[in-house]
Amino acid sequence: MSLTFKINYTDGLARNGVVKTAHGEIRTPAFMPVGTAATVKGMTPEAVAQTGADILLSNTYHLMLRPSAELIAKMGGLHKFMNWNKPILTDSGGFQVMSLSKLRKISEHGVVFKSHLDGSEYNLTPERSMEIQHLLGSDITMAFDECTPFPVSEEEAEKSMQLSMRWAQRSKDAFIKREGYGLFGIVQGSVFPKLREESANALKQIGFDGYAVGGLAVGEGQELMFSVLDFTMPHLPADRPRYLMGVGKPDDIIGAVQRGIDMFDCVIPTRAGRFARGYTDEGEKNLRNAKFADDPRPLQENCPCPACTSYSRSYLHHLFKAEEMLGATLLTWHNLTFYQQLMQGLRDAIELQKLNEFAEGFLVKYRKEQCPD
Amino acid sequence: MSLTFKINYTDGLARNGVVKTAHGEIRTPAFMPVGTAATVKGMTPEAVAQTGADILLSNTYHLMLRPSAELIAKMGGLHKFMNWNKPILTDSGGFQVMSLSKLRKISEHGVVFKSHLDGSEYNLTPERSMEIQHLLGSDITMAFDECTPFPVSEEEAEKSMQLSMRWAQRSKDAFIKREGYGLFGIVQGSVFPKLREESANALKQIGFDGYAVGGLAVGEGQELMFSVLDFTMPHLPADRPRYLMGVGKPDDIIGAVQRGIDMFDCVIPTRAGRFARGYTDEGEKNLRNAKFADDPRPLQENCPCPACTSYSRSYLHHLFKAEEMLGATLLTWHNLTFYQQLMQGLRDAIELQKLNEFAEGFLVKYRKEQCPD
Repeated sequence: MSLTFKINYTDGLARNGVVKTAHGEIRTPAFMPVGTAATVKGMTPEAVAQTGADILLSNTYHLMLRPSAELIAKMGGLHKFMNWNKPILTDSGGFQVMSLSKLRKISEHGVVFKSHLDGSEYNLTPERSMEIQHLLGSDITMAFDECTPFPVSEEEAEKSMQLSMRWAQRSKDAFIKREGYGLFGIVQGSVFPKLREESANALKQIGFDGYAVGGLAVGEGQELMFSVLDFTMPHLPADRPRYLMGVGKPDDIIGAVQRGIDMFDCVIPTRAGRFARGYTDEGEKNLRNAKFADDPRPLQENCPCPACTSYSRSYLHHLFKAEEMLGATLLTWHNLTFYQQLMQGLRDAIELQKLNEFAEGFLVKYRKEQCPD
Repeated sequence: MSLTFKINYTDGLARNGVVKTAHGEIRTPAFMPVGTAATVKGMTPEAVAQTGADILLSNTYHLMLRPSAELIAKMGGLHKFMNWNKPILTDSGGFQVMSLSKLRKISEHGVVFKSHLDGSEYNLTPERSMEIQHLLGSDITMAFDECTPFPVSEEEAEKSMQLSMRWAQRSKDAFIKREGYGLFGIVQGSVFPKLREESANALKQIGFDGYAVGGLAVGEGQELMFSVLDFTMPHLPADRPRYLMGVGKPDDIIGAVQRGIDMFDCVIPTRAGRFARGYTDEGEKNLRNAKFADDPRPLQENCPCPACTSYSRSYLHHLFKAEEMLGATLLTWHNLTFYQQLMQGLRDAIELQKLNEFAEGFLVKYRKEQCPD
């Protein structure tokens, strides 16, 4: 038995469920903070857990380059290495190879590339990606795929998708099954309904523990992204978790949950935290703004995070002006808490069959105050 | 009643005592972590307290420039602003004006200087330093003094010391007494026994709640520093706390405690932590060293800090190689814990009348393994 998924409630297309893995349960809809290099930047794992995160994402590409999957395995696996005892999902490396590495050469076999760190050459194939994620000990392994560029012609998108589907089969063949560990396939096909349908069907044919929608959040905009979800989701099995990769802002997440997505990951809350941008019920706030210099209020009333319970906007402003590390730590803590509170709100709303009311209430307030500050 | 000091045990010249302040007790000998800009770099205040620190030091010079003492007072004072509810000592600004600011002009009245941040002009006098420290709400206020350069002629040292003594009187006159808050005088006189004696006598004449030894740890070396303590300490009142400013490495602290010093502050453990240097029973270790890449052991066996209880040397090495903030946080946490464990060891040893044995045991092990790694 790999990992299991149980749906407890539905509201429209949205689902409230639980994924059970070797390292515990993931309440869905779930948001996964990103711990690229075996650490969520600026946070201790205890702090990440305190925000309410059930699972985090780490990056095959970064870890294979430094410190290497073999070293992490020697140190007892990624959970022990980074002191995170809850579930971990790792991406396959495909996306970062395309976006970060140099001198890529893609063939049927896989990708040969040079490290962005020191220029040394690496070979990444579906089989090697499965081996790396196995060595890391990921609870959820992602199939190795090619990240289709955007925009792209339908012909190119089809060629890329077909390659990813052959790599998906090889990923499945190479994946070593373990109790409580699972493998997710990734639907490609860019913005073309026919290709997305074909891709979804190919993956179902192979059979995966969960299904991700890839190739989005690459500049296509929210409207087009939602449209792709609208025509892709009906082709995904209803009884398996669905993961929208690399998404997104709060309003992206709400719309995707309303369309039946169960899992998300994104660097936005952590990256924004390091760059003085705080998420609140009233939209984003730039803590560097001079108007916060003497503002004694918490960043967000009733937020349970330490940035809000123990400090003023004035202090956060001071930390960013003085370039003190604690500013990034506190604001990342807040943003991750804000995201997890949003996910809890979505889960509760689905349970109560009030998802649309919740979404509307959130978005009206969130967008009302949006202004360049 | 300002702050009180009670000596519980003595061993030779060393004392184990308690300073009681408005924000709680300070067990002595005490080490004060430095929170320059209203934050101990990379640490939450909860983490600082967990290391065992009873008090921290913050900097008048930095805070007067940014965000300003008036703003901190408006936000409820420094304790509330930075969420640290234990005692705080602030320096007077004299040292940083000399070491950091530009275009200084020193007169009998005080110092006019330009901010190192934006070049704007400030005026710092004994009266203004007392006002700033009062606005911050420091439990222990330091008298405003001139930091005598090193090396210096006896004539120059005397001139500087005499100015500092006149400023000490003005500091005392301007200091506003409050229950549980105290003012410390600073002995100057460089390395000259006669000047140190004169300075100590001048301060005793004025009368302070504690006495600091200033103008050391400025490049004179440990031997000369200990020698200055040897001829200065007999002139300080036995019933008041004694504070050696800006010191030091573990062996400096041990030698100074053996000579009767009760309080210390230093950026070494925090700065070293940000630069990958960890303090251990076996000396300093550079966590960037390749030999730690696959070392599964904790940095220091039996250390109660999270860096040692939850992570390997291998992981710490990885964090520094990947330039991840968590490396600085964990190693600062460790170094501060190491320092506080040393202070507890010193306090226990004094109570048991075994200070010399403790010092010898510590230093033999600490120095044995010292090697450039």
